[in-house]
Amino acid sequence: MANIRDLARMAGVSVSTVSRVLNNHPYVSEEKRTAVLQAIEKSSYHKNINAVNLSRGKTMLMGVVVPYSDHPYFSLMIKGIAKLALDHNYKLVLIQTDYREDRELEALEMLREKQIDSLIICSRTCSMDIVREYAGYGHIVLCENNNDEAVSVTYVNHYRAFYRALTYLYQNGHVKIGYCIGRKTGVNSLQRQAAYRDFVSKYNLGFNEDYIIGDCLYFEDGEKVVNKLREMASPPTALLVTSDQVAAGIVTCCQKLDIAIPGELAIIGFDNQPIAKMMDITTVKIPIEEMGSNLFLQAFNGDKSRKEMQVRLIERGTV
Amino acid sequence: MANIRDLARMAGVSVSTVSRVLNNHPYVSEEKRTAVLQAIEKSSYHKNINAVNLSRGKTMLMGVVVPYSDHPYFSLMIKGIAKLALDHNYKLVLIQTDYREDRELEALEMLREKQIDSLIICSRTCSMDIVREYAGYGHIVLCENNNDEAVSVTYVNHYRAFYRALTYLYQNGHVKIGYCIGRKTGVNSLQRQAAYRDFVSKYNLGFNEDYIIGDCLYFEDGEKVVNKLREMASPPTALLVTSDQVAAGIVTCCQKLDIAIPGELAIIGFDNQPIAKMMDITTVKIPIEEMGSNLFLQAFNGDKSRKEMQVRLIERGTV
Repeated sequence: MANIRDLARMAGVSVSTVSRVLNNHPYVSEEKRTAVLQAIEKSSYHKNINAVNLSRGKTMLMGVVVPYSDHPYFSLMIKGIAKLALDHNYKLVLIQTDYREDRELEALEMLREKQIDSLIICSRTCSMDIVREYAGYGHIVLCENNNDEAVSVTYVNHYRAFYRALTYLYQNGHVKIGYCIGRKTGVNSLQRQAAYRDFVSKYNLGFNEDYIIGDCLYFEDGEKVVNKLREMASPPTALLVTSDQVAAGIVTCCQKLDIAIPGELAIIGFDNQPIAKMMDITTVKIPIEEMGSNLFLQAFNGDKSRKEMQVRLIERGTV
Repeated sequence: MANIRDLARMAGVSVSTVSRVLNNHPYVSEEKRTAVLQAIEKSSYHKNINAVNLSRGKTMLMGVVVPYSDHPYFSLMIKGIAKLALDHNYKLVLIQTDYREDRELEALEMLREKQIDSLIICSRTCSMDIVREYAGYGHIVLCENNNDEAVSVTYVNHYRAFYRALTYLYQNGHVKIGYCIGRKTGVNSLQRQAAYRDFVSKYNLGFNEDYIIGDCLYFEDGEKVVNKLREMASPPTALLVTSDQVAAGIVTCCQKLDIAIPGELAIIGFDNQPIAKMMDITTVKIPIEEMGSNLFLQAFNGDKSRKEMQVRLIERGTV
C-alpha cells in the first residue's frame, strides 16, 4: 500500500503538502491538491488500514520481543531492526517481556490473531514446543543458535567465542577465571556455561560455582560484582563480562577502590560498545546492529534461513 | 478484549495451557480444555483481531515516536511507557524518526488510518499546525512544555532547570560557561538556549556561539567535545551537558588527557543516569521513566492534561 512518502513522490509535492490535502487543509494550491488526489486515486490509498489489512491479510507490522527495551544491547539491536523496517515501510510492535512467558505468549498470540505479519524474538523465554505451534501463523525469527526448522535464526556461536576468550585469559597467566552474565538460563547462556565447564576441565582448573555471577545487565551492576569478589576468600583474577556496560561499571568501581586493572583483576567485556573503546576495555566484538538488520530481513523475506555472525576479540588495556 | 492472560485467569489454568487449547494441542486434559473453551465463549475472544478492531474501532496499539530508539534517554522513556502499556493490555508501535519530518508524518498517518489508537511523540519535528490537524483522529501526547489545547503534554521546565544549573556554576566562580546539546532546534533546546542567553546577559558574561556545542548525544561524543575545547583560544571552564552519557564521555576523555575535573573543567550532566552516580558526576535529575509512564496514561485516558515533572540538581564531584 502507498504511504504518505509514496504519495508525495507520485504527486511531486512535499509530504507535508500531502498531509494537508489528506486533512482538507485550505492552504494548498488547486494544482497541488489535484496532483495529490490523482496520486491517491492511482495508488488506491485507503482511509482505514484495518479494512485494508483484513482484505489483504497483511498488517505491515512486525513484532519485536525484547526482555528489556532500555538495555544497550537490545536497544542497539532494535535500532538495526528499525532502520530496515523503515526502508521496507514496516512498523515495529515492541513487546517488552522482562523474560515473562505470558508476555512472550501475548506476542505469539498477536501473530495468530494476524495483528502482526511476523515476529522477531531477540531473547526467548517460551519453550520451542510453544514457539513451533505459532510458526504456522507467520514467520518467527530467533536470535540464538537453534536448528529448529520451524524458525529462522541469526546467531553468534557463543560457545566458541566464550572458549576463545577464556583461553586468551589462560594464555595471559590466569587460572582463577570467572564470568558475569545476565540470566543463567537461556540458550546463549547455557552455551557459554558449557564452554566454561569444558574449558576448566580441560585445563584442570576446577569448577567453582561462585565464579559465575548472574543478574549482571547494567553499568551499576559492576559495583555489585566487585563487592562479591571482595567477599571471596579466593576471588578470580580475571572475569569474562558478557556486557561492556557491566565491564565498564566494574572498571569504574575498581578505579575508585584502587584495585589495579589488569594487575589485580583482568576484564574482558562483550559487544564492543563505544564505552569499551573509550575506557580501553578488552572486549569481544559482536555486530549487534547488523544482527538486528539481518533479523528483520529474515522476518521480512520469510524463507527459513540460518545466519551466523562472526565475532572477534579486540585486545585493549584490561588484560 | 480478553487476552491470553485474561483467559487463563478466567479458566483457572496457565497461559501455556490456554495457548495449547487455542492451537488444538493434543496434550491437554478434557477438563482444562473445556474450562478454556468456556472462557473463550464468555469473553468472545476473536481469531482475527483486525476484524475486531474494525468493528470496535480500537486497535489496542499505541504509537511511540522517538528520534533514536537506542539513546539511553529515549530507551528509558520507552521503558516507562512499556511498563504501563503492559498493565493496560496495550502494545506499542515504535516509530524511529531520526528527526525526519516524513517519518513523523507516517506516525501521524497511522493515527488517521486507525492503525493506532493514540500517539506519543517523545521529541517532535513536525510543526504544531500539522500535529493539530491529526489531533482529531486520536489522542496525541507530547513531551514538551507546550500550551496547545489540541494535545496533552508531560514536560520539564527546561528554562528554569538550565538557568538554575548555570547560576550554580556562576556561584562556583565560573564566568566562561558553555553547554552541549543534542539538536539545537526543538522546543526543549530553544527553551534552554533562551535560559542561556538571559543568563549571560544578566551577568554580562557575553554570548559566545562557540560555547554552544551541538550533536552531543552519545558517550563517544564526549571526545569530540573535549577536542573542540582544546582548539579554542579561550575555552569555557564549565559545561552544562544535556546528557549524562556525553558528560561521562567528557570526564573519561579528560582523565585520559590529564585534564583536571573540576579544576580545569567543571561538568554538570542531565538525567541522573546510573553512570553519573558511578562516575560521581554532578547532574540535574530528570524522572525520565516516570515521564514515560505519565505520557502513557495521558494517551490512554485521552482527556487533555498538562503535567510538569520536577527536576533537581544533585551535587557531586564534577563542580
